Amino acid sequence: MSTVLVTGANGFIGLPLTIALAACGDDVHAISTQPAPPPLPNVRWHRIELTAPGGELEALMRRLRPARLVHLAWHSAHARLWDAPENVLWVESSLRLVRAFIDGGGRRMLIAGTCAEYDWSVADRPLAEGHSPLVPATLYGVAKDALRRVAAAYAAQAGVELAWGRPFFLYGPREPPGRLVPSVVRSLLHGEPVATSGGEQLRDFMHVDDMAGALVALLDSPVVGDVNIGSGVGVTVGEVVDRIVQLVGRPELVRRGSLAMRPGEPHRLVADIARLREEVGYSPRIALADGLAATVKWWEAQRD
Amino acid sequence: MSTVLVTGANGFIGLPLTIALAACGDDVHAISTQPAPPPLPNVRWHRIELTAPGGELEALMRRLRPARLVHLAWHSAHARLWDAPENVLWVESSLRLVRAFIDGGGRRMLIAGTCAEYDWSVADRPLAEGHSPLVPATLYGVAKDALRRVAAAYAAQAGVELAWGRPFFLYGPREPPGRLVPSVVRSLLHGEPVATSGGEQLRDFMHVDDMAGALVALLDSPVVGDVNIGSGVGVTVGEVVDRIVQLVGRPELVRRGSLAMRPGEPHRLVADIARLREEVGYSPRIALADGLAATVKWWEAQRD
Repeated sequence: MSTVLVTGANGFIGLPLTIALAACGDDVHAISTQPAPPPLPNVRWHRIELTAPGGELEALMRRLRPARLVHLAWHSAHARLWDAPENVLWVESSLRLVRAFIDGGGRRMLIAGTCAEYDWSVADRPLAEGHSPLVPATLYGVAKDALRRVAAAYAAQAGVELAWGRPFFLYGPREPPGRLVPSVVRSLLHGEPVATSGGEQLRDFMHVDDMAGALVALLDSPVVGDVNIGSGVGVTVGEVVDRIVQLVGRPELVRRGSLAMRPGEPHRLVADIARLREEVGYSPRIALADGLAATVKWWEAQRD
Repeated sequence: MSTVLVTGANGFIGLPLTIALAACGDDVHAISTQPAPPPLPNVRWHRIELTAPGGELEALMRRLRPARLVHLAWHSAHARLWDAPENVLWVESSLRLVRAFIDGGGRRMLIAGTCAEYDWSVADRPLAEGHSPLVPATLYGVAKDALRRVAAAYAAQAGVELAWGRPFFLYGPREPPGRLVPSVVRSLLHGEPVATSGGEQLRDFMHVDDMAGALVALLDSPVVGDVNIGSGVGVTVGEVVDRIVQLVGRPELVRRGSLAMRPGEPHRLVADIARLREEVGYSPRIALADGLAATVKWWEAQRD
């Protein structure tokens, strides 16, 4: 058993990850800004705003001296994820967290990056760590990329391990409502029209519980450096919408092609997950059909 | 006349730069941590520790709303410049400064990078902006490189100009005593032995007043992006030592070859300054012989 500190622990990925860590018998300390996160066995919650420089974080680190850190927290202004100035603030706050963790004698960090670190303009083949160029086109991608560069150099020098998990696309219970899967599911459930793009673009979707499992496996492995976290399978956005329609019904509500693609949206974004499978030893477990069915059920239950 | 805020304004580059800016008629606000910086006409000093998150910086920005920013401050633990953890802290503090400047309506930033952003292992030709690969090998280089990436992306999005000056090697009055020129000059003046490396490595040395002049020219130009700041001329370290010996005397004190090269020290580090000359319109003015003579005189005066 070791002490592990998790940031963003009540978030979309954070909550299933925290539950999975606690189930493994770790002594889990979970940071969230929320006043009443769900009580969980083996988890102690700490209410800390990581962007507030009051010294609370440093005091917690000195007290706990966690051996391991999972850093998932980032700004949550979803609609402006790509270009929000908060991305800059979160580079600062994340580096401060890294310093406090290393000062406290920490040994291993897992930090969440993003597939937006890659150059999306050349993503015609599966994106692979160490091969595909890292040329982020958004402030979000630049911020995560810069955080990785500094954290990796500092960790290497301090003799601390850094695993950098790079999630692709996600879906599942509790996903912020503005995103693809929840917006389609909820519109269909409420009998509202669904505007979508042509839907030909290929994306790599992973259920959030699978994502949490992969991240826990990465944390528990000795692997350092960048690791793509995805299903390794490309599926078109149109197919995701079709599957949801099959589960919920109401095909007449879908207005396919009524939304324009965002400028610069690539045709294909799929993870090469050889490193996840072979070095970390984790294989994705939840097939898209099953994951979407469970997600639709979860949203149906929210409606009651 | 516009309001310009300078950080590190009492530093080795900062002081001549602040003097030059004030001479141009700008309304100069100078930040320093030092209790008694020299009084200068047209310069108002502000004592602020940029790494302290107390809100003083933000309050100053809101009050002054400077149109322009020159950010030179960085940690000054010279002996540990390359690997000090303070490099991480200065990424955080510099990003906070950039946010505060942009929040305050700032229009143009000049930030000091470093030639250590470049890949030194392939520096057999003059290093050129946009051509030579940026693969820093030290925490200092990684930190400046990451700061540039985030600041550039944020500035572009906010519609603010960023000029990134990339100094090569420097010498001149007030240089921190541990570095090459002051350590040789002072040892010879004090009659102490001088241990040097073989001295074959080529470096690009620029007098600090020339550096300040080049940075002011860059600030006053409309040029954005990366600009090397150097002489464009390679000179061996051995030649620099020989010239100092000619000026001070005491050749018998020099133990050439008694110091090992640092591991990874490249044979050649010289700036391509086409951008500085042609786009900024600045040509280096102080020849090495003259600059070293003035520097030796300055150290001699300190001895009195």
